[in-house]
Amino acid sequence: MSKPLKQIKLGAFLMQTGHHIAAWRHPQAQADAGANFAHYAELACRAEAAKFDAIFFADSVGVKTSDPATLARTARADTLEPLTLLPALAAVTERIGLIGTASTTFNEPYNLARKFATLDLISGGRAGWNLVTSNSDFEAKNFNYEKQLEHEQRYERAGEFHDVVVGLWDTWEDNALVRNKESGVFYDVNKLHVLNHKGKHFSVRGPLNVARSPQGRPVVVQAGASETGRELAARTAEVIFVAHQTLGEAKSFYADIKERVKRYGRSPDDVKIMPGIFPVIGRTQAEAEEKFEQLQNLIHPEVGVSLLSNMIGADLSGYPVDGPLPDLPETNGGQSRQQLLVDLARRENLNIRQLYLRISGARGHQQIVGTPARVADQLQQWFEEGGADGFNIMSPWLPGGLDDFIEGVVPELRRRGLFRTEYEGTTLRENLGLKQPKPLISKDVPSPVLQVDSHPA
Amino acid sequence: MSKPLKQIKLGAFLMQTGHHIAAWRHPQAQADAGANFAHYAELACRAEAAKFDAIFFADSVGVKTSDPATLARTARADTLEPLTLLPALAAVTERIGLIGTASTTFNEPYNLARKFATLDLISGGRAGWNLVTSNSDFEAKNFNYEKQLEHEQRYERAGEFHDVVVGLWDTWEDNALVRNKESGVFYDVNKLHVLNHKGKHFSVRGPLNVARSPQGRPVVVQAGASETGRELAARTAEVIFVAHQTLGEAKSFYADIKERVKRYGRSPDDVKIMPGIFPVIGRTQAEAEEKFEQLQNLIHPEVGVSLLSNMIGADLSGYPVDGPLPDLPETNGGQSRQQLLVDLARRENLNIRQLYLRISGARGHQQIVGTPARVADQLQQWFEEGGADGFNIMSPWLPGGLDDFIEGVVPELRRRGLFRTEYEGTTLRENLGLKQPKPLISKDVPSPVLQVDSHPA
Repeated sequence: MSKPLKQIKLGAFLMQTGHHIAAWRHPQAQADAGANFAHYAELACRAEAAKFDAIFFADSVGVKTSDPATLARTARADTLEPLTLLPALAAVTERIGLIGTASTTFNEPYNLARKFATLDLISGGRAGWNLVTSNSDFEAKNFNYEKQLEHEQRYERAGEFHDVVVGLWDTWEDNALVRNKESGVFYDVNKLHVLNHKGKHFSVRGPLNVARSPQGRPVVVQAGASETGRELAARTAEVIFVAHQTLGEAKSFYADIKERVKRYGRSPDDVKIMPGIFPVIGRTQAEAEEKFEQLQNLIHPEVGVSLLSNMIGADLSGYPVDGPLPDLPETNGGQSRQQLLVDLARRENLNIRQLYLRISGARGHQQIVGTPARVADQLQQWFEEGGADGFNIMSPWLPGGLDDFIEGVVPELRRRGLFRTEYEGTTLRENLGLKQPKPLISKDVPSPVLQVDSHPA
Repeated sequence: MSKPLKQIKLGAFLMQTGHHIAAWRHPQAQADAGANFAHYAELACRAEAAKFDAIFFADSVGVKTSDPATLARTARADTLEPLTLLPALAAVTERIGLIGTASTTFNEPYNLARKFATLDLISGGRAGWNLVTSNSDFEAKNFNYEKQLEHEQRYERAGEFHDVVVGLWDTWEDNALVRNKESGVFYDVNKLHVLNHKGKHFSVRGPLNVARSPQGRPVVVQAGASETGRELAARTAEVIFVAHQTLGEAKSFYADIKERVKRYGRSPDDVKIMPGIFPVIGRTQAEAEEKFEQLQNLIHPEVGVSLLSNMIGADLSGYPVDGPLPDLPETNGGQSRQQLLVDLARRENLNIRQLYLRISGARGHQQIVGTPARVADQLQQWFEEGGADGFNIMSPWLPGGLDDFIEGVVPELRRRGLFRTEYEGTTLRENLGLKQPKPLISKDVPSPVLQVDSHPA
């Protein structure tokens, strides 16, 4: 088989002990993963040896304070902050991308711009920012609010936040740093700019005090699937991480986004769409199903109902666990996720227990239980039929689940010519096949604006 | 000589190419230090091999936008963000402490508490937080303000910020994490608490989503020398980094702080006072002076005047460089630093050029130009006469200046029994001789507060 022009991009979405809610109880799971740097270092090195494009970390800025007894049966409250973990992982890896989630709702753009720019320099151009909004009351209560911000308000702030961060990254032009010891000129004063952003949510002058990175800017990643989220992603995202249950959904989303980006003067290739995949892999179908069953049996019903309630944005603990999903009030939180779950329950006539068992691993993402060939078949189909540019692999438990994928599926994809055997470049941007952006500011502002006189504000 | 009961604590204050303003032009300086992780990794490893207690990083959340041409002759705008750099350094070191500066003025306590807690877990209990306030307009303009906050307002916010951060670190009790795979209990629900802080500046519920560290809490470091700064430090600091020109000043400050801490129910040993020292070291006095002269000759007068203006909080560019320091208006910025510089100029009758030459390296800290024995003599005197518990070493240029200290002064201090030959412990707290704090919350709140019902807010 000849090598196809494009190959599948792969992210390793690392979540503590694994994505399955009971993963930490798995006999081979690293139960203290949430606070164990060596565990993450090992995972990052294994993913890099397998030539994954990136490792990926989710984030939340709080601990869910409802239902404490149930929460205490999960590993969810025991985490490391991604933007502190990723630099440490940068130091023990050389080529793999490092994508961290950071909220636009409870941060300041100057702080975040610096941190990602620093990670990008430390890693030699391997940083990515998964831009999210924070959509829960328990997070809001850690930041002077009683309630989460409204959906539209969060996205409006997120859009402006993005523009400020990118603007700050662009305050240094490429090659601004001269560092000429003889002349005594450290940087070219004409290549450092202020931003002077004054918007509805932010007023930020700049410039950034961290230089431009080897890949121009960190890669911007997003996951919003609502109408507002899609518009923001079409305008700003370079990678979209998304949850789909069926190829139909995936193709529809893919086509929609690739069309939307054109309206912002971007090329469809400027955005890589990577659905999450939750693979449970066995040498035979029976072995894969047995592995999955083993994990499912470790879920306490309290934990299952609580997980579902949290994801669906409504308390289901009062309903019979073997009864149907009740009608739900519309939520201000993740709207798209609630609808996804309701559709799934209605489509397949699942009761509450069946629904929580269904999402306890993949959490709304595509779940594949089978042999390496079967997993590869599905990835290939989604990739070739216009549902995905790549996939974010959500291993059920760690490290074993990731090992299964690396040892089984990666070689299978390579045999089919669908996955790399060596990194194409040294930066995340090069490996993902994304353009290196030019600084925007330098074109619009011909003269150096780093002068108080010309900008008396 | 018998080993004294207490020994000198040593920090390596690492600043890009070095603390001297012209350091980057030094023939052996790493000019691209500000964006070069390998440079910092090398320095951290050397400091660790020499058994320094900690490496220390300053921080600023902006680029000074006045006088751009002068700034472009310095390395000051080209930095890495300390809380992103330190985790990467944690991954390449094993025992040395990792102290980073972070502003209480333009951060949220929940975000900062998580980051330091994560650094502490990643490093096995080696994290320290240098708590500062941001006192310049150019920083304020990056965070929606036109002017810096008033001195008293900054410190009031800083005090409450500290209390929230420590409170969040205390939301997890020691040994809360059970991780019992058989019973399915991940943590003891009675050992995780909410904070429910409601204050003037912050409303933060908690708990933190990062577990308690091996040293209980990251070490809290401060540098404020004003009356308000001293009070805050006496109440909250475990290490104080301070600038003194004379032993008299150092003794007076030391005695004052050690007395003040008692009023907060703390022991004088709970606070370690570490003045900054800028050592230029040669095998002979003449060689040391020659090295210093070499650096001084690299300062452009524009850079010197600008540096002084910035430190003193007033624009001196209009005054004759060989004339006297003019009378200055009182500043809202670093009050204590301005007074220090004015006193120095008056005491020694220095003109502007002489004053900027004087502070271009040490920036108000004690400058010692001499042989290793002479440097060791001064450190010993300050230590034994009640002026210091240790010192923060501000190498003139890097890496050479730090090498000079490690190869010359460290062995000399060891010969005198004044510095360790091996780390006493594995955590920063153990090496500094600081107590391991008990969580405060668990004593005050007997029942688990992680229950929505009992706290309906």
